[in-house]
Amino acid sequence: MQKVGILGGGQLGKMLLQAAANYPVETFVLEKDAHCPAAHMCHHFVLGDITKYDDVVAFGKNLNAITIEIENVNINALEFLEQNGVLVVPSTRALKTIANKISQKQFYVNHQIPTAPFIITNNSEETGKQKQFLPAVHKLATGGYDGKGVQVLNTENDLPNAFDSLSLLEKKIDVKKEIALIIAVSTTNQMAIYTATEMIFDPVYNLLDYQVAPANLPKEVLWKAEAIALAVTKNLHSAGLFAIELFVDKNDEVWVNETAPRVHNSGHHTIEATACSQFDMLWRILLQYPLGNTATLHNSALVNLVGAANYRGKPIYQNIEKALQTQGVFVHIYGKQQTQPGRKMGHITIIGKDDVDVMHKANSIKNQVMVLA
Amino acid sequence: MQKVGILGGGQLGKMLLQAAANYPVETFVLEKDAHCPAAHMCHHFVLGDITKYDDVVAFGKNLNAITIEIENVNINALEFLEQNGVLVVPSTRALKTIANKISQKQFYVNHQIPTAPFIITNNSEETGKQKQFLPAVHKLATGGYDGKGVQVLNTENDLPNAFDSLSLLEKKIDVKKEIALIIAVSTTNQMAIYTATEMIFDPVYNLLDYQVAPANLPKEVLWKAEAIALAVTKNLHSAGLFAIELFVDKNDEVWVNETAPRVHNSGHHTIEATACSQFDMLWRILLQYPLGNTATLHNSALVNLVGAANYRGKPIYQNIEKALQTQGVFVHIYGKQQTQPGRKMGHITIIGKDDVDVMHKANSIKNQVMVLA
Repeated sequence: MQKVGILGGGQLGKMLLQAAANYPVETFVLEKDAHCPAAHMCHHFVLGDITKYDDVVAFGKNLNAITIEIENVNINALEFLEQNGVLVVPSTRALKTIANKISQKQFYVNHQIPTAPFIITNNSEETGKQKQFLPAVHKLATGGYDGKGVQVLNTENDLPNAFDSLSLLEKKIDVKKEIALIIAVSTTNQMAIYTATEMIFDPVYNLLDYQVAPANLPKEVLWKAEAIALAVTKNLHSAGLFAIELFVDKNDEVWVNETAPRVHNSGHHTIEATACSQFDMLWRILLQYPLGNTATLHNSALVNLVGAANYRGKPIYQNIEKALQTQGVFVHIYGKQQTQPGRKMGHITIIGKDDVDVMHKANSIKNQVMVLA
Repeated sequence: MQKVGILGGGQLGKMLLQAAANYPVETFVLEKDAHCPAAHMCHHFVLGDITKYDDVVAFGKNLNAITIEIENVNINALEFLEQNGVLVVPSTRALKTIANKISQKQFYVNHQIPTAPFIITNNSEETGKQKQFLPAVHKLATGGYDGKGVQVLNTENDLPNAFDSLSLLEKKIDVKKEIALIIAVSTTNQMAIYTATEMIFDPVYNLLDYQVAPANLPKEVLWKAEAIALAVTKNLHSAGLFAIELFVDKNDEVWVNETAPRVHNSGHHTIEATACSQFDMLWRILLQYPLGNTATLHNSALVNLVGAANYRGKPIYQNIEKALQTQGVFVHIYGKQQTQPGRKMGHITIIGKDDVDVMHKANSIKNQVMVLA
């Protein structure tokens, strides 16, 4: 039986393990929080720090394959494991390119992939001088995730909030829509593309608020988005599951925002709405099985359950039973010990026959289900 | 967060835990095999014997609810827990009625539910005298499962093989089809009925070999089957998930074969083919959420992966990658440490648009995927 490890034990790890249970695989998780969502769902939980070289090497050296559920891991350790015969998915080369937002951006430029113009700043002082570049999106080069390490600098007045660290300053695109495409790449270089998901972000926490799939866009725009996402994936030359986030501007031009080399929030609906879920798909890649079928079975919407403002502590999922009463609704609670404002605590998928139906239900669920404490 | 325990850690427990991961619930499993399929999927694995009073009481006394994945458990312990405020699903009263095949049979008679004529025998000597009652199905009163403890006595020549124990001798019905219906009952007495599944059994191991859903029978026969299954469930007066196995004879008369008060092999296709799976449904009952939607989303077939004859030891799943290459195919490997002839090692669900499509694929998978050692 193959031994496969996951770096990180959050909700992505947990949902990976739900899918893993269908396959002959012995699962390992490395995470420093013994009460993380994935801790109780694997064969072997290892307490340790995914950013520490020794912890990652000790964890991975007897595994057949290893993957990540977050980019912020010790890549040098993964490189050592890769050189010693462990299948690392995504490859450390791809991970290096992506984990640092500056090298990720440079990668797009090098491969003529459309992306917003940018400049690099080393500290808040340098950023402070860029008022002619505003409005811009300001991103930490490393360590940001789930909306942290990213902020919008609209006007001069926002400049004092600039991160005092190596960062990227990206011209703000006049966005009409945000979409994401997930592409799977097998170890034998076969590819499978999921239908695009359309996203709406919460303006306060910059967290995904609501998404629908398939995205509601003209075919020509979707073709462009697919072509661009494929160019990103091909040029990474790595097996894995990649989520490519894209902007569609007012002129229907498509721009890459960011790429995540892992299972992704924009693909959670694939559990119920697609023949092969993104989680199942990553196991097929890791275990070197044939890729699964990405066909859409149902229209879907997805609501993230984030911790309500002003509530911290043991989570209470209010009105969950009301959501469960609605037809075509699937609740996923991540099992985090503590809620805090804006924290991703779960999600709800709604399937239906058309987008009007699922969006209507998503809106009512969004206003109903709350994570309090 | 509610604490819920499962007695037994086999594949049913494992699939229950895959579904539990979506809900805010702390899971417990009691099982004497530390390497059982469910052991690594729960929050708390407790090593112990589900047939021992003290083990079950110690396991259950701090839980909010408890359920079973096999009938052969200590019912007295469950009764103690029930009296002390633990929600026991199914109720111990229903479990008592069902766990003993003689009282189960008597229950059908008492409620005018059609079932094959029977006699009770205390030992092999008594059974040996029943040659005028043949052909008959001979069932141990207690302890049988998965085709064990059941045998067909066709002729006088089979009588020397009779079980030497309290048993049921049932007139063999001239079966045209075997079907099963799953019915969910909430703690507030609401009901949800799944579409009937049609089954074909392996003649050697008497294990389910192959099944399709929805069953292919005239509406009038299905209505009769539903009415009978509902009569069984209503008269048990218990929350829970009940699988009612039925025979349809050559005259389209419907007879109850047996009832299982738990998730059941005949409902495994509901994971992919139905809006709410049988596993999800049982959690909704245990956590006192609204019942889920039993609507069929796809036609489906299901192939059990049983250990091939003559192979014992560490399982090898041959041609699993070929099955995974077929569209609409979902593999479930239970993760048992050892295979043996006829042992249930996994199952494969096939979804499609019609029954011809799924049966065609099921047949090819059945001849392709083998569990060797």
